[in-house]
Amino acid sequence: MFNFFRMGRIFVGMIGGGTVGGGVYQALCNNGGLITSRTGVEIILKQIAVKAFNEPRPVSIPESLMTTDWHNIINDPEIQIVVELMGGTGLAKEIILEALSRGKSVVTANKALLAAYGEEIFAAAEKNQVGLYYEASVAGGIPILRSIKEAFVCNRFLRICGIVNGTCNYILTQMNENQSDFETVLKEAQTKGYAEANASLDVDGHDAHHKITLLASLALNSWIKPDSIYIEGIRSVTLADLELSNKLGYSLKLLGSIENRGQDKSSAKIQASVSPTLIPLNHVLAKVNGVFNAVSVLGDVVGETFFYGRGAGQDATASAVVGDIVDAAINTSLKTPHRLPPMWLGAKVDLVAIKDITSRFYLRISGTSETAKDFQAILNKNNICVEQSKNLNSEGTIHFSVITQTLSRAKISLLLQEINKLSGLLNKPVAYPVEDFN
Amino acid sequence: MFNFFRMGRIFVGMIGGGTVGGGVYQALCNNGGLITSRTGVEIILKQIAVKAFNEPRPVSIPESLMTTDWHNIINDPEIQIVVELMGGTGLAKEIILEALSRGKSVVTANKALLAAYGEEIFAAAEKNQVGLYYEASVAGGIPILRSIKEAFVCNRFLRICGIVNGTCNYILTQMNENQSDFETVLKEAQTKGYAEANASLDVDGHDAHHKITLLASLALNSWIKPDSIYIEGIRSVTLADLELSNKLGYSLKLLGSIENRGQDKSSAKIQASVSPTLIPLNHVLAKVNGVFNAVSVLGDVVGETFFYGRGAGQDATASAVVGDIVDAAINTSLKTPHRLPPMWLGAKVDLVAIKDITSRFYLRISGTSETAKDFQAILNKNNICVEQSKNLNSEGTIHFSVITQTLSRAKISLLLQEINKLSGLLNKPVAYPVEDFN
Repeated sequence: MFNFFRMGRIFVGMIGGGTVGGGVYQALCNNGGLITSRTGVEIILKQIAVKAFNEPRPVSIPESLMTTDWHNIINDPEIQIVVELMGGTGLAKEIILEALSRGKSVVTANKALLAAYGEEIFAAAEKNQVGLYYEASVAGGIPILRSIKEAFVCNRFLRICGIVNGTCNYILTQMNENQSDFETVLKEAQTKGYAEANASLDVDGHDAHHKITLLASLALNSWIKPDSIYIEGIRSVTLADLELSNKLGYSLKLLGSIENRGQDKSSAKIQASVSPTLIPLNHVLAKVNGVFNAVSVLGDVVGETFFYGRGAGQDATASAVVGDIVDAAINTSLKTPHRLPPMWLGAKVDLVAIKDITSRFYLRISGTSETAKDFQAILNKNNICVEQSKNLNSEGTIHFSVITQTLSRAKISLLLQEINKLSGLLNKPVAYPVEDFN
Repeated sequence: MFNFFRMGRIFVGMIGGGTVGGGVYQALCNNGGLITSRTGVEIILKQIAVKAFNEPRPVSIPESLMTTDWHNIINDPEIQIVVELMGGTGLAKEIILEALSRGKSVVTANKALLAAYGEEIFAAAEKNQVGLYYEASVAGGIPILRSIKEAFVCNRFLRICGIVNGTCNYILTQMNENQSDFETVLKEAQTKGYAEANASLDVDGHDAHHKITLLASLALNSWIKPDSIYIEGIRSVTLADLELSNKLGYSLKLLGSIENRGQDKSSAKIQASVSPTLIPLNHVLAKVNGVFNAVSVLGDVVGETFFYGRGAGQDATASAVVGDIVDAAINTSLKTPHRLPPMWLGAKVDLVAIKDITSRFYLRISGTSETAKDFQAILNKNNICVEQSKNLNSEGTIHFSVITQTLSRAKISLLLQEINKLSGLLNKPVAYPVEDFN
């Protein structure tokens, strides 16, 4: 009934033959015919640039497809789509800009690169009137960028928040389930391959920060500078924090969030952060465990929607990359390679300064009963209204937590400075925001 | 930085000015400028066809925009996109086919029409090489069709199941929370406007059945005849069923599902149904309450993903309709109105016959202790392996439930015939499938 072969063949070159590259190769081998039957476009993966032919690979790739010189891909006039999966912010940037300047569309999963140089790279795609696709860079298999850009195009976004780093979510889930501390779980995760040897990118919040930078820029139609987004990782989270959060009616997660706390349309007050955050136990985000990712989107028309899926790994990421390749191939074959701008960047938006970010806060100290008294004295002296409080006792240590009224980060910073000077502290006091989804 | 006005103006005509039509009008009034800044396309809602000018409307529409003759829209050569929101399967069909035959693209939320005449309507869109968009017809604000068609294009779908009727989910949630029976909650829901005066479309499963027909056809690349999908509504669900399900470790929901129960790729065994279904309490779908919709998609590449949001109502549906209008407008302005076929319909797929659908089943009878004994005797005689069982006693009645091994619907049907003859039954025995998400 349908004219399936209306579009013909599109040649694709890929830079990187590691985990995700292998997944893309495999998905195209297994389901390439299916894609053609669905879309009318035949995708030919013509060449894959790798560091060396004989590296160990999760998926074996025929040597005839490989090259060790990426120029072979960029210089091939038949290749109209370049897929960058090598990672990093050096050579990857050079290759992407070179591909765009030659009128090739680019698909990438490289959030670190886009967060650092997005403005320049998006502009290059515009200038050359080609496409730039990066669904796989945020929340792996979850089609969150597409949904924000296309399905929800008629919405002003009032709040977008999500669990976008699977490693951190895995660590927090394991700490909770096995009653283990951060360092123990991190080591286990590294042994199992769920965390990198250098875990800082994940556990210090940088990876989530890259993704929130991209989500914020999309949602606000304006390039958001990464350094205007607050960032705090999960190194200071203790078992006591997980337990106290639960007692208070919350789950503690590393949450990225972009929120408008203004009272009405005319008084936008947008704040963005990545931080361990208390989420009400009855909210769906609180139930997201293990390596899974999830994003909640609140639009002024659609209301609240929620997306959940695998945030990383060979196959989920490959699914997103191939989805983008197909989109690029259809647009290329229809001669509309620049069908949608890669990002909406027209508006002028200022985030509230990090010091002015407001929230209710969870504060916790661990120490002696004397420390707890001194802690309460500091709260009283500073007119902190304690809305809830819970404590835990174990082996002579008291873990004492409160939830405050809405305060600014500037105020919380001063408070923490004072609290840090208390005598008898077992470890670093913490202050985490409470997300009430109001 | 971007050339936002590259696409110009696109004129749209709308048929229907009721709840959803009003929502679309309002969203375009409020956020039309935002859409233009994001996409470069200016959408002009030129005319709205209504039954009468002076009908009560949730959103007031200027009289200058209205017409009582839909031909004014179809005949207007400036209007390139027709949005059908009148509902029904009669005149709506005529208008859509007429619009398509004149080379206009169509946006609709009419699942009943598409389930009944989809094959003919999709073919007409193909023949005229225009677009047909229907995201709003399944799960309201949730971008599930777009995600299946585009983001997950490289996936074979192993299972798609969802809570796609908000009225049924609201009724079951209220029964559970207020310990009320079906009839009481239905009357309340009708008073509050959450259920139609004629509730059959919702509570007998027809609306969910329309949506599952569309999801199944998309997922399987083949037009699935509605009568090959099993359908059962929620009228027989009792409070005892909700409570017993919980005791057994499940939540009882009206679930639409499309599943491949074959052992491998070469032995596809696809079955589809709409039925009250037991869902494990720890699965995210079990937590979806009230009027919300949710869909879980299992793809062979992406793994399991999950979508949640408002399934109906003025604004969520309007968000989906406007998303489609924008898509249609971009494609129209780029002169690629038929960018994607409305549905993939190349494959030949046979669902397993309804009698051959297999599942583990929950069986429940309510009666005297004598009835329960006779029930067990029937199970024994028929070699039914009772994997779990729970009972409830209230006011001299015993509610007795079991979960069986995997059985066919043919076998269940025979069993129910026999069980129905038992003496002392308080109400109709039920058999609902158990979805284990294996």
